[in-house]
Formats: sequence, structure tokens, C-alpha cells
Amino acid sequence: MKIKYILEHEEKNTKARLGKIETNYGTFETPMFMPVGTEATVKTLSVEELKDVKAGIILANTYHLWLRPGEDIIAKAGGLHEFMKWDGPILTDSGGFQVFSLAKPKDISEEGVKFKNHLNGDNLLLTPEKSIEIQNKLDSDIAMSFDECIGWPASYEYCKQSVERTLRWAKRGKDVFNNDRQSLFGIVQGGEYEDLRKYCTEELVKMDFDGYSIGGTSVGEDKPTMYKMVRYATKYLPQGKVRYLMGVGDPIDIVENVCRGIDIFDCVSPTRLARHGHYLTKFGKYNIKNAKNKDDFSCLDSNCDCYTCKKGYSKAYIRHLINAGETLGARLLSIHNIRYLIRLTEELREAIKNDSLLAYREQFIKDYYGDKGLPYKQNLDEIIN
Amino acid sequence: MKIKYILEHEEKNTKARLGKIETNYGTFETPMFMPVGTEATVKTLSVEELKDVKAGIILANTYHLWLRPGEDIIAKAGGLHEFMKWDGPILTDSGGFQVFSLAKPKDISEEGVKFKNHLNGDNLLLTPEKSIEIQNKLDSDIAMSFDECIGWPASYEYCKQSVERTLRWAKRGKDVFNNDRQSLFGIVQGGEYEDLRKYCTEELVKMDFDGYSIGGTSVGEDKPTMYKMVRYATKYLPQGKVRYLMGVGDPIDIVENVCRGIDIFDCVSPTRLARHGHYLTKFGKYNIKNAKNKDDFSCLDSNCDCYTCKKGYSKAYIRHLINAGETLGARLLSIHNIRYLIRLTEELREAIKNDSLLAYREQFIKDYYGDKGLPYKQNLDEIIN
Repeated sequence: MKIKYILEHEEKNTKARLGKIETNYGTFETPMFMPVGTEATVKTLSVEELKDVKAGIILANTYHLWLRPGEDIIAKAGGLHEFMKWDGPILTDSGGFQVFSLAKPKDISEEGVKFKNHLNGDNLLLTPEKSIEIQNKLDSDIAMSFDECIGWPASYEYCKQSVERTLRWAKRGKDVFNNDRQSLFGIVQGGEYEDLRKYCTEELVKMDFDGYSIGGTSVGEDKPTMYKMVRYATKYLPQGKVRYLMGVGDPIDIVENVCRGIDIFDCVSPTRLARHGHYLTKFGKYNIKNAKNKDDFSCLDSNCDCYTCKKGYSKAYIRHLINAGETLGARLLSIHNIRYLIRLTEELREAIKNDSLLAYREQFIKDYYGDKGLPYKQNLDEIIN
Repeated sequence: MKIKYILEHEEKNTKARLGKIETNYGTFETPMFMPVGTEATVKTLSVEELKDVKAGIILANTYHLWLRPGEDIIAKAGGLHEFMKWDGPILTDSGGFQVFSLAKPKDISEEGVKFKNHLNGDNLLLTPEKSIEIQNKLDSDIAMSFDECIGWPASYEYCKQSVERTLRWAKRGKDVFNNDRQSLFGIVQGGEYEDLRKYCTEELVKMDFDGYSIGGTSVGEDKPTMYKMVRYATKYLPQGKVRYLMGVGDPIDIVENVCRGIDIFDCVSPTRLARHGHYLTKFGKYNIKNAKNKDDFSCLDSNCDCYTCKKGYSKAYIRHLINAGETLGARLLSIHNIRYLIRLTEELREAIKNDSLLAYREQFIKDYYGDKGLPYKQNLDEIIN
């Protein structure tokens, strides 16, 4: 079956929504943070650990799996769920972002994008149709349309042309899409220009996708600009479909964009931060390598319910593991960081349910940023009106 | 309390022994293979996974933990068990092997060994007394005497002098050892010379250690030479004390040396092999990277009871993870390989109990080496007489 988005409650004072998504592999609540399993594995975690951090859905990268091991191998395995033994929902991206970020040099034409395989230098062509074909074989629950992911800043003229191409590509992908087990999302582009975001959104909505993603964020823009871009899209998206903000995982970005009507998020940050020894808490981001942790035998966060904290692994031990390059260190921090972000979405759900999201947001900012306050000028108007 | 070795059965046709060892952290059966947790972590595994592979005891490296994070940090944490959250028994080595293998250049004197810290180049001195002091602070259940670990081949004259020094160092360590919670083993050296091994063994036995290790193997010698060295020691060791063969983990070496009266083994091989994509089965060692595994969706070994095999992770998936450099790949193979070696010791225990070890050994060789047969000339006489 296709996914089914059920809108359960619209928060009274903001644009936030509480909902749930039914899939072939179970139902999960939104807002939700999706851990990223680029290579058909969420780095350092087992599938049991993913269940344990309460991941409702994970993301896998079409580009990486296309190049290695290849979509035909995964299809032959019975699809991605069976290949990686994950029996929860999976969302795949279109490969677009990676083609534009990893695989340079590139040659963008109406047909698609020519680029060099970053593993072996082979010349490859990714098109809207090819992306759908690959995602079909991967057998994810939610597939993405192939879009042009542009950088920031970009001129109005370039954005306009790019939006038109993204729309033509979305249409081409949708035209070849024919899969009852999979849902297809359209991706809103349009840079920082409200009229382009509005236009792109409205055109996609006319095509009637199963859900909508917001792309072209986390490409170098400042936070207020990102939030604006998001609002320019959610303002014109239908209430009955799910909204996914791609590649965003900074805690404050999750809070702010939930307030602006986003339902699902993904980001590599929790595992990447972990590999560098960083961990997230209510009171901000810390570095385990800090010398003061060398004989700190307390856990990362005494209020955290993740395996790492419940088991009582100490900062001193995890610091030692990270310094020694032992993979258990990155694993313990990855578990903690992913759980942190998922618990953040749980708290946001609770605040939406209670219509207390503005108060939650205010307390979150106080706790996380302390006396320094927000690192940007906030625009409450975007949330409230 | 000190460890207590209980000899339960001597196999009728060989020198093999079935026994158990009681420690402050539980009892385990012997023969037993010990996974190695060099940096206070068995590479890629959690402590739950160690329980799951049925590790009865693990080894930690004194040298590494002395240099990082330092024995005082671990003492402050409440000892190694608490530091790494492992509530089973732990054996620590003396640091001798690492000083001789990792920390060059070195300067060996009667006092001890001067060497450069391999992490930062600092000049350090390890002595028999210092090794005991560190192991005391680590709070392992079983500590090793500091010995001189020489290479192979070595002249009779050098070995003789070295044995004398190892005995003087063993005595010095024992003289300062004063810990009721920890047991201390003496280490038999003597190269390939029976009279030196005999002499070393008898002198150590006079000092009355809590158990005995056999060192100076796995240093470049061929298998028949290793097996000879082992027999030259076990022949003169008392039946009532445990015998530990250091750094040996090739499956055939475990089988052969159990036949020669060894009780416990350790080796980094199962995790090291895993990182290189190798896995062990009844029918030999295989490389997961082999192209024929690319669409082999069967598990590593359908008769294996490890997590990796029971969960059904396919060769194709694990091959993909290893090729992609994903740590889950090394983790799944490490779990499998460690479980393989521990299960091998379980099967050996069963064969000892049934007095059918010679038949087990023969079948093992047939299965593991197939038509190629043993890669060395066997000496059944060493086992039988």
C-alpha cells in the first residue's frame, strides 16, 4: 500500500502538526527525526539499536546504493528491508543532492545530470526516470522525485529556471512511477524567493504527490533564511499530506521548523557529530574529548534514556574510546545523539498535543543556548501567523 | 578472592583437561578462548555482545591502558570492570609482549625495559614491580608476571640467559604482589629448548603461582615448534593449576594445544580477521570480499548460533558493508569469529568429557583443511604420551 498520513492535531498557536504515518512496515508518529543509513546501515548501529532509540523510519541514499552494491543486488536480496534486516519504514532520497555535492564535475542538461562516479571515476547519467527506477528496485516505502539542488545564494533568474526544470523532472518521474507499494514525494525548490517557492509548491500540489519535501536548505544559508524558505512552502502545502524537510538536524532547526509545519526530518549530524566526539544534550552540544572529562565518571546526561546513558558508560570511558579510535566510542555517542533527536521530536509531539509549543520552544532555547541566547534574530511572526 | 581452578576431568587418550575457574566475577569452564579488549573494549563489540558470544573471560592489555587513559584513571573509575561495564572476569597481560613488539627502540637491563611510548615518544621504564602495580590498579582478576618475550629463532645461550632473567623478574613481581582480589601467573619461557622450558617451568612452580602461562610462542615459529614448546611446559606443570597459552588463536592451534593440556587462550585474530573481511567456519577461513559473495544471500554459516548468522545477515550484505568501510561489517564478522572460537572450545570440552578428543581432532582437521590436509607434519606422540 501507499503511505497514509493522518493529521491528528494542529497546534493552536503555531503551524505545528501532530500526525502519524501508516506504511507497509508499521506506523510512526510525526513530527519524527529519521536517522540516515547512507550505505544501508545507520553508521555504527545495529537494527536492534535503531529500534531501541525508537526510530520510526530511516533514510537510505539512492546515489550510494546505486553505485554500491547496485540496485539489482538489493532487488535480488528482496529489497532494502530484507537486505539490511530492517523491518521498519524506509525513505530513499532521489540521488539528486549527492550528484550535486559529491560527484563533481557534472554536466546538467534537460535530460538529467552527467557526472563521475566518486568511487571509480566512471561516467554516469542520472535522470528523473532512472532515479525512480532505482528507488523502485530498492523497494523503499517513500521515494523522492529527482530535483536540481542548487546552492545558496543563487540569483532569482537561476532559481526560476531551476524551479521550472525541477517541476519538469518531477512530472517525468511521476509519469514513469507505477508502484502501489511505494509512495512518491515531490520536492519544493525555489531558493529564498517566496514567489518561486509558492509557484513550485502549487505546481507540485497540482500533480498530487503522496507527500512533499522541502529541498535546497542546509546549503549554506543562515538560519532565518532557512526558516523563511520552509514557511514559503508549508504556507501553500495541503494539510492532508506529509511534509519532509530534507537534510536538517540541528536541534533548534527541528524545533523552529516543527513550529512552521514540518513533519519529518533527516540528517547525518548525530552520527557525524559522534565520530568527532560531540554529543547533544538539553543544555547544548559538548565535546567528549575535552580534558575535563578525563576523570568524569558520570554519564553523558543523567536524564537521558538511551542505552549509553542508562548503562552508565562514563564520559571518561567514552572519551578514552574516542581518543583510542575505538568504534564503540562512536557507537555509544551515535546511539545517544540519535536518541536525543528522536526524543526531541517526542517532546515536540507532546507540546503540540497540549497546545504548549511556544512555551516549549522558549524553554528549549533557554536551556540549549543559556545566557548567549539564540544565534540569530527570531521571527515569531512566521510561526504564529 | 583468588581464582580457583577445578580440574573436572582428564581426557583418557590425550593430555587435555576439562575444568572450571571460579573468580570474583563468576565461573567459567575451560578450555576457553578469551577475546582481547586491548583498549578496555573488545573491538567493535558491546559488553552485551560479549555475553551473547558466551565469552567467559576477556583479556585487557596493561601496556595500552597504562599509556592511555592511565591506570590511575581506571582505578579512580573503580577498576576495569566498572570502567568498561564488563561484569565478567578479566585477565591482564604484563605489558611485556607490547614493550618488545610495539615500543622500539628498547633497552633491556636487569632493572626492566626502557622504551619509547608509541603514542607520544616519551621515555618510559617498565619493570616487574611497575607491571604488578599497574595491574593492581586495573583490578583485573588475573595478572601476569613481567617476562622477557624473545623472538624465534633464538640461540640456546640467549634463551638460557633470558629464562634466568624471566625467573628473576617473576620473583621480583611476586615479592611485591600483595592482593587478595587478584591472582598472579608465572610465564614459562625457554624458546624451543626442552631443558630450558623444563627448568623455567619447575622454577616457577617452586615459586607457587596461582596459574601458569606459556609465552614466547606465536613469535614466528612454525606450528610443530609451537606445539613442542607447549608440551615442554605442560609436561612439567602441576595438574591443579590453570595453564594459559598466550596470543594463540588459529583454530587448529587451539585444538592441538588443548590436546597438549592448555586451558585458556587469547588472540586478537577474530577481530583482526573481521576488519579484513575474513570469517571462520568449520570448513576453513573465507574472505567475504570474494566477488562470488556479491549476490550470495545466505548467512556466513547456517550451523552457526551467533547473532550475525541467526539474524540472517547475508554474505552479500556483509560484503557490501566491508567494501563500504562501514563499521557494522567488522562488528558482524567479529561477533561471528569470536563466537566461532568460543564454540570451538565448547565442542572441545564436550569431546574431553566424552573421552573422544582424538576423533574430534581428526574430524576437525578433515573439515577444516579438506583434501589439502594439515599444513604441517603432525606429532601424535606429543598428545598421547
